[in-house]
Amino acid sequence: MEREQALTIVNKKIAGPRYEHTKRVAATAEKLAVKYGADVEKTVLAAIFHDYAKLLPIKELKEIISDHQVDPRLLDYHPELWHGPAGAVLVREEIGINDEDIFNAIRYHTTGRAGMSLVEKIIYIADYIEPGRQFHGLDEVRLLADTDLDMALKKSLGNTIKFLIDKSAPIFPDTFEAYNAMSNK
Amino acid sequence: MEREQALTIVNKKIAGPRYEHTKRVAATAEKLAVKYGADVEKTVLAAIFHDYAKLLPIKELKEIISDHQVDPRLLDYHPELWHGPAGAVLVREEIGINDEDIFNAIRYHTTGRAGMSLVEKIIYIADYIEPGRQFHGLDEVRLLADTDLDMALKKSLGNTIKFLIDKSAPIFPDTFEAYNAMSNK
Repeated sequence: MEREQALTIVNKKIAGPRYEHTKRVAATAEKLAVKYGADVEKTVLAAIFHDYAKLLPIKELKEIISDHQVDPRLLDYHPELWHGPAGAVLVREEIGINDEDIFNAIRYHTTGRAGMSLVEKIIYIADYIEPGRQFHGLDEVRLLADTDLDMALKKSLGNTIKFLIDKSAPIFPDTFEAYNAMSNK
Repeated sequence: MEREQALTIVNKKIAGPRYEHTKRVAATAEKLAVKYGADVEKTVLAAIFHDYAKLLPIKELKEIISDHQVDPRLLDYHPELWHGPAGAVLVREEIGINDEDIFNAIRYHTTGRAGMSLVEKIIYIADYIEPGRQFHGLDEVRLLADTDLDMALKKSLGNTIKFLIDKSAPIFPDTFEAYNAMSNK
């Protein structure tokens, strides 16, 4: 699928600021794909579709996760974690993109997981560091992403876990396992 | 078993500063047991024996964990995590204390776990806040322990996870699960 076609499809689902975010993630992901030797077209496609389900009602996201036997533990955690897995399903079913790497990059872009592929890592990091983002600790991750994708991933996962702890929020097991997989065991 | 007898046994294994720490943990645990309505004698006994294996050589701790089929994942993590599980086994086998609650309080006093009993929570917190300890964030946990044991536990588990992340160290799954069990799901 051509980029322009993909962007047109996505723009029907997510207009406004979220669409602008998507374009920045795609541009960031493209640079990272070139730098780290990932399949550029595949990575950009995953980026364009990563937030495909972001603006769906929570009720609908919940149904998609229940009906498609996506990890049921998700429903015990914050709805913010649902649009990735639900989006992966929709992109496969509505758009007909059957690539496993794209599926997983969309699915795990919020939580991460142990054993992420290069494309998955790039989408996770591109979503975290795209130029529109601004929060504490981000500059360090941006610098790391320039030279060491795994270090950037470890840092961003660690930041996310610390942020959740400061809110007394639970941590989805995939995020914890992603951090542990990258830590100095 | 009487306290004095227990202290004499422990003092043969751990002399010096570690023995002084043990006595402070026992005194702290006793106060918490009274405050929160735990079995005082059982709690104090668990406190006296909590570091029973602390000064054993790493090689010996490893053998105990391997030979007694204690959670084998422990051996992939920092040896600091081994003296609790190994100590629990030795206290049962060498001292003949067969109480399950004491066994688990010793076993999980460093990592925590989901679903800790009252005695387990008290030993974990007493070890964390005893008056000889001094580190960032401790005063807040001490204050919480005065009024809400679960809040103190959540805070101390969160602090531990954040400390490990700042060192890029892995987090043992039991610790993560203990935190999640206490967080605002």
